[in-house]
Amino acid sequence: MSTLSPEEIVQKMMAKDAFSQWLGVKVCQIEPGTCTLRMTVREDMINGFLVAHGGITFSLADSAFAFASNSRGQHAVSIETSISHTRPVFPGDELEAKAVELQNGKTIARYAVSVRCGENTVALFNGTVFKKDSLWT
Amino acid sequence: MSTLSPEEIVQKMMAKDAFSQWLGVKVCQIEPGTCTLRMTVREDMINGFLVAHGGITFSLADSAFAFASNSRGQHAVSIETSISHTRPVFPGDELEAKAVELQNGKTIARYAVSVRCGENTVALFNGTVFKKDSLWT
Amino acid sequence: MSTLSPEEIVQKMMAKDAFSQWLGVKVCQIEPGTCTLRMTVREDMINGFLVAHGGITFSLADSAFAFASNSRGQHAVSIETSISHTRPVFPGDELEAKAVELQNGKTIARYAVSVRCGENTVALFNGTVFKKDSLWT
Amino acid sequence: MSTLSPEEIVQKMMAKDAFSQWLGVKVCQIEPGTCTLRMTVREDMINGFLVAHGGITFSLADSAFAFASNSRGQHAVSIETSISHTRPVFPGDELEAKAVELQNGKTIARYAVSVRCGENTVALFNGTVFKKDSLWT
Repeated sequence: MSTLSPEEIVQKMMAKDAFSQWLGVKVCQIEPGTCTLRMTVREDMINGFLVAHGGITFSLADSAFAFASNSRGQHAVSIETSISHTRPVFPGDELEAKAVELQNGKTIARYAVSVRCGENTVALFNGTVFKKDSLWT
Repeated sequence: MSTLSPEEIVQKMMAKDAFSQWLGVKVCQIEPGTCTLRMTVREDMINGFLVAHGGITFSLADSAFAFASNSRGQHAVSIETSISHTRPVFPGDELEAKAVELQNGKTIARYAVSVRCGENTVALFNGTVFKKDSLWT
Repeated sequence: MSTLSPEEIVQKMMAKDAFSQWLGVKVCQIEPGTCTLRMTVREDMINGFLVAHGGITFSLADSAFAFASNSRGQHAVSIETSISHTRPVFPGDELEAKAVELQNGKTIARYAVSVRCGENTVALFNGTVFKKDSLWT
Repeated sequence: MSTLSPEEIVQKMMAKDAFSQWLGVKVCQIEPGTCTLRMTVREDMINGFLVAHGGITFSLADSAFAFASNSRGQHAVSIETSISHTRPVFPGDELEAKAVELQNGKTIARYAVSVRCGENTVALFNGTVFKKDSLWT
């Protein structure tokens, strides 16, 4: 068992996570196996269709997934992730990503992350991690 | 049929694609249904494990997928994408993403993108698009 | 709009669906966008590890997905499906698959199907359909 | 290292695999990390659209994936699989599924399976396994 709390683990992760910082990610909630993040889409995050690049919503969801899956204290690494973009996202949009744990097995754990903008779901993400023997310290 | 060539379409897309520009994406090859991109990972692209954030390789692959799927002239929008990270990526690594067309149906098309660093595959990406009636002009 | 109710559509589908009949699928609940099915695993459904073949739970989930996505009256065809097997399933196990609608767009709709055996989740399935112009009549 | 050859392992698996036998699966080729299977679609394998049930092509691909991933001698269990059906399949169609290894890591391995009917690709399947410590004996 890690001696660190979920908050301490995510604080450690965020402190080194230069890309989540560039995204402007804020941690809103973190508990064992779950995490909620927020960020605001900027003009430098758009693609050739002038909507948010698919990599932006993916990255936000991937960070929520990483924090939720590491929050229990074991190092967890991504095996497989998928995302469906259900609505376009625009500069100025405030996004909220909520990761929930679907399964917490001995070596494998699974998470679903929904990304919302206000009332609307803009992306559905699923991720699977491999849980290593090493702990957050 | 679009009156634009694959090169002209991707040039149009890249010109507006602020996030691919931030990533430092270079278009190396573009032909109908296929595209190769390159970029170099920077220190501001890492995550809490001090390796490239999963969103970086995803974004590179997603851009290659978008360019390959739009290169035939019809507007194509992502329905579903997935990625497996097979090796960690570090600042300074030069990545190459190659998108190939698996299927080019009437309304649905599918692509596989492999991301390599030198000889090693670092990520395997799959994507499906919906082909709209509208054309690149 | 189809003149058939969800029950009538699924009854039509099941009547011709020889493979769901072989599986012993029973329709427990059907409403617009959602469906619950049950079946019992038999000895002729096992694989080389003497547990239910991955194709059995997939097929049950895929039928629930097909019924839920066609229940609104438009013909819906599968674009992409994925499944994670979270626990082994044995001959004699009674499975329940519940499909819920995550998104009901104009041309694309998405469903999650959870397969349970008693209290335990044994598989997590996701599916995306393309909605055709033609209706169930 | 297992003392069994890939052929011996798959022979052992097939001998107990009642569902692959019901499908009429024939092993055409097996080497470390790769496997080709064939089967003929029957009338009792169709769905409510009178084409092969999605579970049939999935099951064939899943068996090819299981045989390819176990052929190296370690017990391998499915973590995640996905399938896209690219063309309808009809009773009487002869299907060939070919599994190839995309990655063979220490604990994780990945495979792509293409399912063809003559010249046409009818399904694209991807699968990831976890490699256990135990061996085929």
